[in-house]
Amino acid sequence: MARTAHSSRLRCCLLLAVFVSQFVERVCGVWPLPQEIQQSGDSSGLSPQLFSFTYSQDSAAQTGCSVLDTAFKRYFSIIFPDFTKEGLHDMWLEPKAFVVSVSVKTRGCDGYPDEDSDESYNLSVSDGQAVLRSVTVWGALRGLESFSQLVYRDDYGAYFINKTEIVDFPRFAFRGLLLDTSRHYLPLHAILKTLDAMAYSKLNVFHWHIVDDPSFPYQSRTFPDLSKKGAFHPFTHIYTQSDVMRVIEHARMRGIRVVPEFDSPGHTQSWGKGQPDLLTPCYKGSMPSGTFGPVDPTVDTTYRFMERLLKEVKFVFPDSYVHLGGDEVSFACWQSNPNVGKFMEKMGFGRDFTKLESFYMESIMNITAALNKTSIVWQDVFDYHERPRSQYVVEVWKQGCYLCEMRRVTKAGLKVILAAPFYLDLPIPTQNWARYYGVRPLAFRGTKEQKKLVIGGEVAMWGEYVDATNLHPRLWPRACAAAERLWSNEEKTLNADLAFPRLEEFRCKLVRRGIQAEPLFVGHCKQEFNGL
Amino acid sequence: MARTAHSSRLRCCLLLAVFVSQFVERVCGVWPLPQEIQQSGDSSGLSPQLFSFTYSQDSAAQTGCSVLDTAFKRYFSIIFPDFTKEGLHDMWLEPKAFVVSVSVKTRGCDGYPDEDSDESYNLSVSDGQAVLRSVTVWGALRGLESFSQLVYRDDYGAYFINKTEIVDFPRFAFRGLLLDTSRHYLPLHAILKTLDAMAYSKLNVFHWHIVDDPSFPYQSRTFPDLSKKGAFHPFTHIYTQSDVMRVIEHARMRGIRVVPEFDSPGHTQSWGKGQPDLLTPCYKGSMPSGTFGPVDPTVDTTYRFMERLLKEVKFVFPDSYVHLGGDEVSFACWQSNPNVGKFMEKMGFGRDFTKLESFYMESIMNITAALNKTSIVWQDVFDYHERPRSQYVVEVWKQGCYLCEMRRVTKAGLKVILAAPFYLDLPIPTQNWARYYGVRPLAFRGTKEQKKLVIGGEVAMWGEYVDATNLHPRLWPRACAAAERLWSNEEKTLNADLAFPRLEEFRCKLVRRGIQAEPLFVGHCKQEFNGL
Repeated sequence: MARTAHSSRLRCCLLLAVFVSQFVERVCGVWPLPQEIQQSGDSSGLSPQLFSFTYSQDSAAQTGCSVLDTAFKRYFSIIFPDFTKEGLHDMWLEPKAFVVSVSVKTRGCDGYPDEDSDESYNLSVSDGQAVLRSVTVWGALRGLESFSQLVYRDDYGAYFINKTEIVDFPRFAFRGLLLDTSRHYLPLHAILKTLDAMAYSKLNVFHWHIVDDPSFPYQSRTFPDLSKKGAFHPFTHIYTQSDVMRVIEHARMRGIRVVPEFDSPGHTQSWGKGQPDLLTPCYKGSMPSGTFGPVDPTVDTTYRFMERLLKEVKFVFPDSYVHLGGDEVSFACWQSNPNVGKFMEKMGFGRDFTKLESFYMESIMNITAALNKTSIVWQDVFDYHERPRSQYVVEVWKQGCYLCEMRRVTKAGLKVILAAPFYLDLPIPTQNWARYYGVRPLAFRGTKEQKKLVIGGEVAMWGEYVDATNLHPRLWPRACAAAERLWSNEEKTLNADLAFPRLEEFRCKLVRRGIQAEPLFVGHCKQEFNGL
Repeated sequence: MARTAHSSRLRCCLLLAVFVSQFVERVCGVWPLPQEIQQSGDSSGLSPQLFSFTYSQDSAAQTGCSVLDTAFKRYFSIIFPDFTKEGLHDMWLEPKAFVVSVSVKTRGCDGYPDEDSDESYNLSVSDGQAVLRSVTVWGALRGLESFSQLVYRDDYGAYFINKTEIVDFPRFAFRGLLLDTSRHYLPLHAILKTLDAMAYSKLNVFHWHIVDDPSFPYQSRTFPDLSKKGAFHPFTHIYTQSDVMRVIEHARMRGIRVVPEFDSPGHTQSWGKGQPDLLTPCYKGSMPSGTFGPVDPTVDTTYRFMERLLKEVKFVFPDSYVHLGGDEVSFACWQSNPNVGKFMEKMGFGRDFTKLESFYMESIMNITAALNKTSIVWQDVFDYHERPRSQYVVEVWKQGCYLCEMRRVTKAGLKVILAAPFYLDLPIPTQNWARYYGVRPLAFRGTKEQKKLVIGGEVAMWGEYVDATNLHPRLWPRACAAAERLWSNEEKTLNADLAFPRLEEFRCKLVRRGIQAEPLFVGHCKQEFNGL
């Protein structure tokens, strides 16, 4: 069917208000909402044959920049999903070139994103060209994502983009997503796909809760028995060093940090299988009962083991953060064990086991600091010992007054990450994404300095009821709502009703990109079932 | 790796109590629980090369029986998922033949399952052979499913089956599953896969809630405008006649009935787009407001239209049942319309609009009866008019005292289907499958004759929040729990704790067969991620 570009051209956003044909695809929004965006109805046609990304002359990064070269290729496929060289030629009577010119101030193409990475970008789309400017390659990635979301198609498959000006930067530097690969093993493809969707939503920290009580899938080179005996299966249900590298590189290419969590002293049942003297033997009366409790904090071997493990972790995971857990330690087993009792006495802890946990966590955090890594811990560690001797980052996870906790943590001068209102794993109604629009991480009484210590938030997908069969629909699009609240201007994104049609549209984009994002309500996406 | 069949042989069920190696797959149960099952630890090895299904000499069905020929082929692939002719030869030092001999009393290979179909079967598995006897081909299908579930593999991939005796039949004849293809369109592959999983769970009625307010995806040959104007998209979001035939044939091959629902007079907004005079014009004061309400029950054209539509439905859908809906009719629009008012007066209905709905439904049910079809309706129809003039089947869906309703319906001499406790579409906790174990459809006061009128139950997957992205994990394995309660002996399946490990095992079987069934709790399946 030969049609001129003109006759089929749709002025997307302006037209929306006037008339929406059943077949018009409304693809003109950007998710999460940019800090500033101005769009007009003037559109340019895009022809895949004459479309290109290029480095502008003044850019510090040029061809050979791994992160951006790969991103150009990736976004070309995302923008033109069914492009074939011959394909669409006859549809274009007047094909016009379109160039996206990218300019980056600092190079850093071979590094990793970190907590100080500047993710800001400016994007200017006009007739036949777009100019994308950023300080870092990570900012350029965010801009490319926004650019890709601006492109839309009409009913004949032709591509358009409207004149647009965007000035954008994230509200919070830490916008995380936690996956739990211990309660259920998640195959590599499920993790990689999650990273893809994170990049689409501009989430930038993959918090890998890699091991826990049920299984130890991380294949350690220092302690291979940990996964050999502690994984669900020693060959099929593990992450080899090569798997981990692949995750880290896939994440790096998308500007995503990988923060591993090796949670101790609790949540370590699976560790005990491959490291026999690590856990505390529980006692029944004066005899060992045969069961084991948390890591034994009273013996030197524990700290030597942890130091060697953390050294490996430092080597394998380039991020400056490492999550040390420290949550939900049950004291019953420690209480039952006579050696622990003696140690408590010697240390003058009385019967206060929170002191014993603090002692253990301080030691582990000291090891981590000596390795030049920043520790993140769950809030329990702070709660047990509110006067921190060292600097660490606190992750707030407990329901209830999480803002009170944020206030206390920042008052103590520690950085904080908010996860409590973003627990996604429970099979609660899909509609509860709207709740995230009521979450205001800074709405506690405190000084400006305190507020600055709130470095971000995190959605948590625990694994009790989640594996590869239901991971993606349970994550998406709900995690996108949290992602918007962590990236965008709070005042402009307080209204879930206004967000609803935008999120519906973005959810359709995710589906089109192969992410199994579940529907928000009755309706349909135009190209919804391709590839699902 | 060459190993004798003997050394790797596992006496599955008996061994379970004694010792379970990490790598042993515990595949010896049958879901839903057969009425009688006896298993021993004696096992036979199965070699794909020397395995066959055959018709026994005394069987009424022989080669050429479409349903069973196809089932033999299908179950061979299910039992030996990675079979290649050359493949596993070297693993078998003493390959032995195994023959499953199937004997069916009545032929009926080219018919459709119906409400009177006998699904009973006897299965006897001994050394080197199995004998499957049933009255109908549908019973043989149930037996083949049970047989396939009895086969298990050891860690080296070798196949085994234990000596087993099964006498089995369903508790209820109607074990339904509702899919809603109007609120979201479900692509054909999602429906076909649902039918596969239904067969694995021995569910036997696909209740196709094919149209509703949001869209009309059924492409009618009599009224093509209904989908042309009422579907989400007139080409991509419809079920053509050929699609419907494919669904019906796929279902038939699995002994599943397809009962379509054309819900009226409410839930018909999408009908109005392609059939302009069908719906009641709503009024604001003395003027039409431009919106429309339920089907207009006051004009002859409505009944002529419904008769022609139902004639087509009769022709397209072979099942003797057709679901006519009749639920949730809002009376506001009827109340506003002066013509409806006049009609009410003429008929002597006063201002009682339930009488008007009853009048409409009676008329539609008469049309259906004249077409030799049995009507199913939602309980509203019965509630409005408890003294039925005609025979129909009532589907109980309202929460609250559904047993009270069952009692009333059966007291009126009508057949009844219970759906109320089996609404699966809401994103409630996965664990709520356990609730189904407390559902006792016959636990109301009533005579034996009344109890006989309870013909079964149905799980309902409404479409507000469900499309192909999340359908399967939301359906499975929860629907399996309901399926067991509808098939098995109630007294033997009252305990959800006892069912838990069996359901976990069955869920792994579903995953292995390519059904995206979500996990019940922490853990893993051995071959869990193949094909997902």
